[in-house]
Amino acid sequence: MPCLAGSLSHVNEPARHRIRFTLHYDGADYFGWQVQPGRRTVQGEVERVLGRLFDVPASVLGSGRTDRGVHATGQVAMVNAPIRWTPAALRRAMNALLPGDVWVADAAEAPADFHPRYDAISRAYLYRVGLAPECRSPFHARWCWQLAEHLDTRAMGGAAQCLLGEHSFRSFAKAGQEERGDRCTVTVAEWSRWDPVGIEFHITANRFLHHMVRYLVGTLVSIGRGLRPAQEMAELLAPTSPLVTSPPAPPEGLFLHGVVYP
Amino acid sequence: MPCLAGSLSHVNEPARHRIRFTLHYDGADYFGWQVQPGRRTVQGEVERVLGRLFDVPASVLGSGRTDRGVHATGQVAMVNAPIRWTPAALRRAMNALLPGDVWVADAAEAPADFHPRYDAISRAYLYRVGLAPECRSPFHARWCWQLAEHLDTRAMGGAAQCLLGEHSFRSFAKAGQEERGDRCTVTVAEWSRWDPVGIEFHITANRFLHHMVRYLVGTLVSIGRGLRPAQEMAELLAPTSPLVTSPPAPPEGLFLHGVVYP
Repeated sequence: MPCLAGSLSHVNEPARHRIRFTLHYDGADYFGWQVQPGRRTVQGEVERVLGRLFDVPASVLGSGRTDRGVHATGQVAMVNAPIRWTPAALRRAMNALLPGDVWVADAAEAPADFHPRYDAISRAYLYRVGLAPECRSPFHARWCWQLAEHLDTRAMGGAAQCLLGEHSFRSFAKAGQEERGDRCTVTVAEWSRWDPVGIEFHITANRFLHHMVRYLVGTLVSIGRGLRPAQEMAELLAPTSPLVTSPPAPPEGLFLHGVVYP
Repeated sequence: MPCLAGSLSHVNEPARHRIRFTLHYDGADYFGWQVQPGRRTVQGEVERVLGRLFDVPASVLGSGRTDRGVHATGQVAMVNAPIRWTPAALRRAMNALLPGDVWVADAAEAPADFHPRYDAISRAYLYRVGLAPECRSPFHARWCWQLAEHLDTRAMGGAAQCLLGEHSFRSFAKAGQEERGDRCTVTVAEWSRWDPVGIEFHITANRFLHHMVRYLVGTLVSIGRGLRPAQEMAELLAPTSPLVTSPPAPPEGLFLHGVVYP
């Protein structure tokens, strides 16, 4: 009997290979990446579609969570797919079945031990700040933080530069979330024009704390609004700083833009 | 009685001033600009909202029709508004009531004889061609013509240059539509990068024939695909040309981008 069970189990588990894919999604209508019972999530949609294609439940692993309302143009995820599915065929089939706000940009075979989260050496986020009135256009309004006031972009650029290098970002994290310490190494932190709609903040680091980009942008925009001096950015990075950040920027301007692997 | 009728009619028709506004709209879910019974049109939505604000039916005049599925980032329209509505207050109220895919970018007082269509001295259109795979992203897919093949953009740029100046565009018009002749003077006709998604065609002329931009882009893309030689563009502009254009490009890539007045 154990022998028969073993052979049946073998019949039910055909050979699989690991496929890595890159996802774009408009997060506006999702409760974030991670599966939650009874809620529409991106991981949930992707697993639903893969389960239908594989005819058995599928488990998808992402490079990290994105919060409710946050978008992606470079989320990386993986699935163990039955060997009959080539990456290209799987990508086509997924795109045919996924809703219009999730899209598989590419798919490729990955090593059997590839782990989208633990193997990542850096992540890049983009945050879009729309300036009124242009940002209210239906082609932009859903995907930016809409602001109406003048921003001192020179002060914001200077404050962003302080972030480069390794610092404690404890002040910029949702309290009590981090078991792996609060130090992050930032390699890109800069504002650029997002013509003609507004400005955008690019940040790349080896790791990010929970809500870190939104706290950083909230504080940088406070500096741009003249509500706090630019030098407070550096002070907030001191481990013993008594200062507190400004409120986090809203999720709708945030994009997980890319994940880098060795 | 005529006297009473006249005075009642005066009560019902308060003093009005002409307000000109600029509209952006995502045309994907509309049967074009112009009011049609039983169909959702942009003019219809704007008139519905203004009727509600003015408490009497409102008539809106646009700079020109856009076809079903065509977008705008610079449609100009006007309404005769009760004098109690300032342009700024009207703009705010319209944006509060309009659906998310139509937006009033600005509103200003216009001369009493301003006519958005007859006063226009030129119009600018933009046509977006998305190149796979980037164009399939949910942030772009709705608003471009999605193409998967390589395009010879040098040939397309050369062919676009032939359009500059005054020509007969009869070959590039839906047959039998034009009572005012077929000659148009093109002042801008060029392709540029639309990074990272694809390329875009900018064209400005004193007037456009029906479907002209879509026929031009359809033919330019045929040249880019290598399906017809670039020199046929100039030949198609000859009044006696025996050639026919390529099929028109689809509406989803087309934007009415701006209207110029003296």
